[in-house]
Amino acid sequence: MGKYKKYVPDGVEDCLPAECYLKRQMEAALRETFIVSGYDEIETPTYEFYDAFQSGVGAYLQESMVKFVDAKGRILVLRPDITVPIARVAATKLDTLPQRLCYIQNSFACAEPAFGKAGEFTQAGIELIGEAGCAADAEVIALAIKSLQKAGLTAFTIDVGQVQFFKGLIGGLSLEEDEIDELRHAVDSKDEMAIEAAATQLGICDELKAKLAALPGLFGGEEVFEKALALSHNEMCAAAVENLKSVYALLKEYGFERYISVDFAMLHDIAYYSGTIFRGITQGIGFPVVLGGRYDALLEKFGQSAPATGFALNIKRVMIAMERAQQLSGYYETYAVIGCDAQSSAAAYAYAEQQRSEGKRVVFATDTGKDALAVQKQRYGAQAAVYFEADGSRTEV
Amino acid sequence: MGKYKKYVPDGVEDCLPAECYLKRQMEAALRETFIVSGYDEIETPTYEFYDAFQSGVGAYLQESMVKFVDAKGRILVLRPDITVPIARVAATKLDTLPQRLCYIQNSFACAEPAFGKAGEFTQAGIELIGEAGCAADAEVIALAIKSLQKAGLTAFTIDVGQVQFFKGLIGGLSLEEDEIDELRHAVDSKDEMAIEAAATQLGICDELKAKLAALPGLFGGEEVFEKALALSHNEMCAAAVENLKSVYALLKEYGFERYISVDFAMLHDIAYYSGTIFRGITQGIGFPVVLGGRYDALLEKFGQSAPATGFALNIKRVMIAMERAQQLSGYYETYAVIGCDAQSSAAAYAYAEQQRSEGKRVVFATDTGKDALAVQKQRYGAQAAVYFEADGSRTEV
Repeated sequence: MGKYKKYVPDGVEDCLPAECYLKRQMEAALRETFIVSGYDEIETPTYEFYDAFQSGVGAYLQESMVKFVDAKGRILVLRPDITVPIARVAATKLDTLPQRLCYIQNSFACAEPAFGKAGEFTQAGIELIGEAGCAADAEVIALAIKSLQKAGLTAFTIDVGQVQFFKGLIGGLSLEEDEIDELRHAVDSKDEMAIEAAATQLGICDELKAKLAALPGLFGGEEVFEKALALSHNEMCAAAVENLKSVYALLKEYGFERYISVDFAMLHDIAYYSGTIFRGITQGIGFPVVLGGRYDALLEKFGQSAPATGFALNIKRVMIAMERAQQLSGYYETYAVIGCDAQSSAAAYAYAEQQRSEGKRVVFATDTGKDALAVQKQRYGAQAAVYFEADGSRTEV
Repeated sequence: MGKYKKYVPDGVEDCLPAECYLKRQMEAALRETFIVSGYDEIETPTYEFYDAFQSGVGAYLQESMVKFVDAKGRILVLRPDITVPIARVAATKLDTLPQRLCYIQNSFACAEPAFGKAGEFTQAGIELIGEAGCAADAEVIALAIKSLQKAGLTAFTIDVGQVQFFKGLIGGLSLEEDEIDELRHAVDSKDEMAIEAAATQLGICDELKAKLAALPGLFGGEEVFEKALALSHNEMCAAAVENLKSVYALLKEYGFERYISVDFAMLHDIAYYSGTIFRGITQGIGFPVVLGGRYDALLEKFGQSAPATGFALNIKRVMIAMERAQQLSGYYETYAVIGCDAQSSAAAYAYAEQQRSEGKRVVFATDTGKDALAVQKQRYGAQAAVYFEADGSRTEV
């Protein structure tokens, strides 16, 4: 019996009762938030055909997928995200548009614990499919904000960007996919040296190089839109700015301006994003707690074209942030621990079930004598401990 | 783009909103039932080391596990059941006993759709760890009955058995593991011809052969205990009968006698069971909806010995049974669909959020004109459709 029998594979973990309680509370709050906002919950399989993720997700996600082979030799993957499966479902199984769908499911990646990358993580998210307008973008971002609030997080920022602005800037160049990836990564990292170097290597003219290098500076409040328009050099860029400006205006109408920060250098690492994108960041954790945006070209890969936008919230990251802010607490409240002698099982069980039917938590301490009941009372922090005896008596311990 | 991009691997499926709604309702009812009964929810990883399942589960589960290899070349499996992982957690991470643990998680198997065997299925279950007495067995069976009731199933039977009776009968023989498996399978199938054949092949004497062949007849109500005692040929058999009789007596005290049927030929296919076992069956579905029993030797495989008992309920099977009995219905109730013109976003959003804060479901029909709102109202079956306009008016559509 090797000692590693006691352990679990890299990057996955047991969620013990104290943590699981808090996780379920958060999931319930998120589910309620999604559902009252008109989103219908859906489930997709834990594993899918590799081919479903072959295009649209980009090299980053593809390389880190957990793969295995089925009995027929086909390659399967543990789903690396939920947006692609929902796009598959919406394109192939749901006729009416728009669809508002939500989920709370686990996603998987090849774990790299050293880089804080989990092998299995729970995502709670929504997808709004079939709406192209900026009102849909605003709805999704507003719901992300409400979701973080309902989860219990008090201090966070939503960075909003628009990938079409970057795509417009480089639109006139003939670049390969991996060259675009490199440039995108340099811009997204806000690394001006890397942007300069990449642009020079790709033979980009000085004027455009300067514009790309200026992207990390397009960061802040409403004033950024004017600066971005000044940098635009075609209709695609200008349309991207106008779109994000409209989304921003709606979020302001909804009362969320204080959460929003504009960032034209933010581009995300997943290739399917095609418009307004956003991420939620908070103190105490170096990764986004929520990530989302528009992906208008993903559904057509499954045979049915439709615009779409959505987000995924990483439950564990929100919990870590809240724990560090000491905002995470709570556990089951036990009403009573009960015990009985051999003649009083019926009375004790009936009492327990009566309390339980009123929503009170009752632990039936089987095989516990009257004396040991006090120990169980303390362990469960129960309000009461009741012992039933054959003479019909009930003793509070 | 191959057409199979639209599909999912064998044995797994999408759970679309109408079904997912009903599943969540059932899960919530089960979770509430477990928690008010004193059980703490827990989560274990979707995949574990193969070695964790190497012993105790038997050839049946082992052969059908979904296996893959991690970056270090270790064999991982998608968990084929939840009892083994919880035994691992209880033995290695939880100090206090008893532990009452519950879960709602998916398990996995190599799918055989032709035999109704799913590749991924949701199980809701409990484990009571650290209690050896028959009161613990009765608690777990009573909770299985309550769970099926709370899930909404009205007609079902709980077959109870005791694997030690069979083990006592064959205890004097020196049989290999696979020979026991063959005999166990023949008895469990209630196939008297197969029992005869297997016993003859194993050189079992006529007296014992007759006892084994009589096992399928040890089926019915309380009267079965006397018949079983008459068949007992050692202390192990007699103790098994006495144990199950005591469990039966407690369940009678709790008021559940009408659900219980005694069956000494029922032996389950999983090797870790070691005492009183049970299964729930119902009309309209050929597989058990719940399966459970005592497994006193499983924890010691993870370095810490403790008695334990529990059950797992198969959510999909309960849903199928209820659907066939026309007992499954319900969907989200939408209070209002709302729309607005470009100047009224703030008013419309504030109205939606006000209703939502009261738990009412409101769909914000973005990009929908006043005329189209009636279509959305009908689609969602909403009580109201409200359109907000710049002059401050609200029109019910």
